[in-house]
Amino acid sequence: MKARVYLDWNATTPLRDEARLAMVAAMDVTGNPSSVHAEGRAAKALVERARAQVATALGAEAADIVFVSGATEAAALACAGRGLVCSGIEHEAVSAWCDATLVADGLGRVMVPDPSCAALQLANSETGIVQDLPAGLAVSDLTQGFGKVPFAFDWSGIAMGFVSAHKLGGPKGIGALVLRRGLDLPAQLKGGGQEMGRRAGTENLVGIAGFGAAAGAAARDLADGVWERVAGIRNILESALSGGKSGTISVGHDAPARLPNTLCLVTPGWKGETQVMQMDLAGFAVSAGSACSSGKVRASRVLRAMGLDEVAAASAVRVSLGPATVEQDALRFAEVWAAARTRALARME
Amino acid sequence: MKARVYLDWNATTPLRDEARLAMVAAMDVTGNPSSVHAEGRAAKALVERARAQVATALGAEAADIVFVSGATEAAALACAGRGLVCSGIEHEAVSAWCDATLVADGLGRVMVPDPSCAALQLANSETGIVQDLPAGLAVSDLTQGFGKVPFAFDWSGIAMGFVSAHKLGGPKGIGALVLRRGLDLPAQLKGGGQEMGRRAGTENLVGIAGFGAAAGAAARDLADGVWERVAGIRNILESALSGGKSGTISVGHDAPARLPNTLCLVTPGWKGETQVMQMDLAGFAVSAGSACSSGKVRASRVLRAMGLDEVAAASAVRVSLGPATVEQDALRFAEVWAAARTRALARME
Repeated sequence: MKARVYLDWNATTPLRDEARLAMVAAMDVTGNPSSVHAEGRAAKALVERARAQVATALGAEAADIVFVSGATEAAALACAGRGLVCSGIEHEAVSAWCDATLVADGLGRVMVPDPSCAALQLANSETGIVQDLPAGLAVSDLTQGFGKVPFAFDWSGIAMGFVSAHKLGGPKGIGALVLRRGLDLPAQLKGGGQEMGRRAGTENLVGIAGFGAAAGAAARDLADGVWERVAGIRNILESALSGGKSGTISVGHDAPARLPNTLCLVTPGWKGETQVMQMDLAGFAVSAGSACSSGKVRASRVLRAMGLDEVAAASAVRVSLGPATVEQDALRFAEVWAAARTRALARME
Repeated sequence: MKARVYLDWNATTPLRDEARLAMVAAMDVTGNPSSVHAEGRAAKALVERARAQVATALGAEAADIVFVSGATEAAALACAGRGLVCSGIEHEAVSAWCDATLVADGLGRVMVPDPSCAALQLANSETGIVQDLPAGLAVSDLTQGFGKVPFAFDWSGIAMGFVSAHKLGGPKGIGALVLRRGLDLPAQLKGGGQEMGRRAGTENLVGIAGFGAAAGAAARDLADGVWERVAGIRNILESALSGGKSGTISVGHDAPARLPNTLCLVTPGWKGETQVMQMDLAGFAVSAGSACSSGKVRASRVLRAMGLDEVAAASAVRVSLGPATVEQDALRFAEVWAAARTRALARME
């Protein structure tokens, strides 16, 4: 039996070794970071060390990082009750709190007339399309871009951004909100002075330690050009599987900028859901649209917002690679997927 | 140099071996529990196994358990915007959302005229005093009681309760809300279908696995009578250190029920803050009041609410034991603390 091939890194990533080591080490730290005794101070030191690691990776100051339970909580903290606008390509954790009055064009670009009251993602999880973020933007979901493309928060002119550890090799259930220097916001979780009064609750010590280590490792990988190799594999897959007479469109191919690891393939009439199941049986983990809706697979909201019709938007499969992706595995996927497409298209005739 | 002695188990507990093993194993599970492929299903299975473990330990059904990032988030989910009342002995994560119109008597008992719109804790973190929870209670903070005293949610007649993993040997940053069968509530974190629509956000897989294992181990310990041994040590300390001519009161000694592990010692005039620092230097981790206010130590709100005056309420030290507490270490603490008290009282004369 062949080993399985994981090509769903945008849904979640395998845990990096650096994160694992930091987490296992943190398991031996007993104290509550709010306790004043030595055990408490040791725990606090661990949190602050990780905060500095995340800040450095983000290009921000440690004092402006607020640890939260993930990007969904961060999105609520950044967006809820503020009357922001966004487009239909945002994750639902953002659009749940915004008016979706902004429009994405066919290349996935969003025009933002008034950035000070808008939310716009750095990169899209389904298509990989990267936005040119306007200065003065109120909120940016940095989750998919952080660690994959160069980005420095303090140079971006953005008021608030947020990230999630498990998209860059850290654990699930921990993320951070980052604030422009001088900015503050009222806590939504109350009842303790943690996170400088911005988020109450005993800190997720093991998760935070893993996040810090993963962020540091991700920044190093990015600087080392690791994603250029990944982009090379993605581009081979893209050339082999889309365009020409294949019947398959690669969404994002013509966008001005795209994540190095993401390939969104639309083959009208061949349901994404079917593709995911067929590939799963063949040993490959890929995704149809976002994973975040409890296993329900529908026509992609994101692709609909970009103007694709219902049939096309229901025919997307997302292949997302990571630093550990092996070219040979990716090529094997291309072969199996293309053969399945041939059979599917034959049935449609 | 003597090893340090940790006597602050109500602030947070050392990680249980069972939790550690489950967490390390979960680190190898790559998938997002919302993904439909094999990797996603394996992650989902881990979450559901832990949910069943927590449910069994709580005496509830798995379908009624909602995983959240800890007791503070659970308190917000259970209490915010509902106009509940509570007393001054509740944790601030509860009282932040309630009108504190209920009154605690000198023994820490709270009378609840209308349970259906009230929040009342199972046990107090500072005094260990256990409440007789009225049937029909809207919300109960079960955090300190869960795992230390027998409790079955489904028999309690309570509408909602909540717990935190790190109080019973699990990791920090994960907790659960438990709902009476048939009850539901709107999500506060939106943007995903996780937790049956009650709490969006990718699940804290490693934390949840650790929580499940810790809850199972805690329930086994409780059934095995582990806390009777702990209570024995606590009672020895209490007899040695309070009452008579010592100048020290043991708060909760006369309460109808108390946690087996908690000792709250009030020595009027000797500041709790000073005691904590002196004991820390001597190698013992204890606490003055709750740990949850970012290192600030003030007169205990809980003791003030029970009618103690400002001086007395600022003179409390909490000694909280756990299953791993060694009698000899506790006796050594008693000796060191009593000698420090003698010096402190001599200076006051």
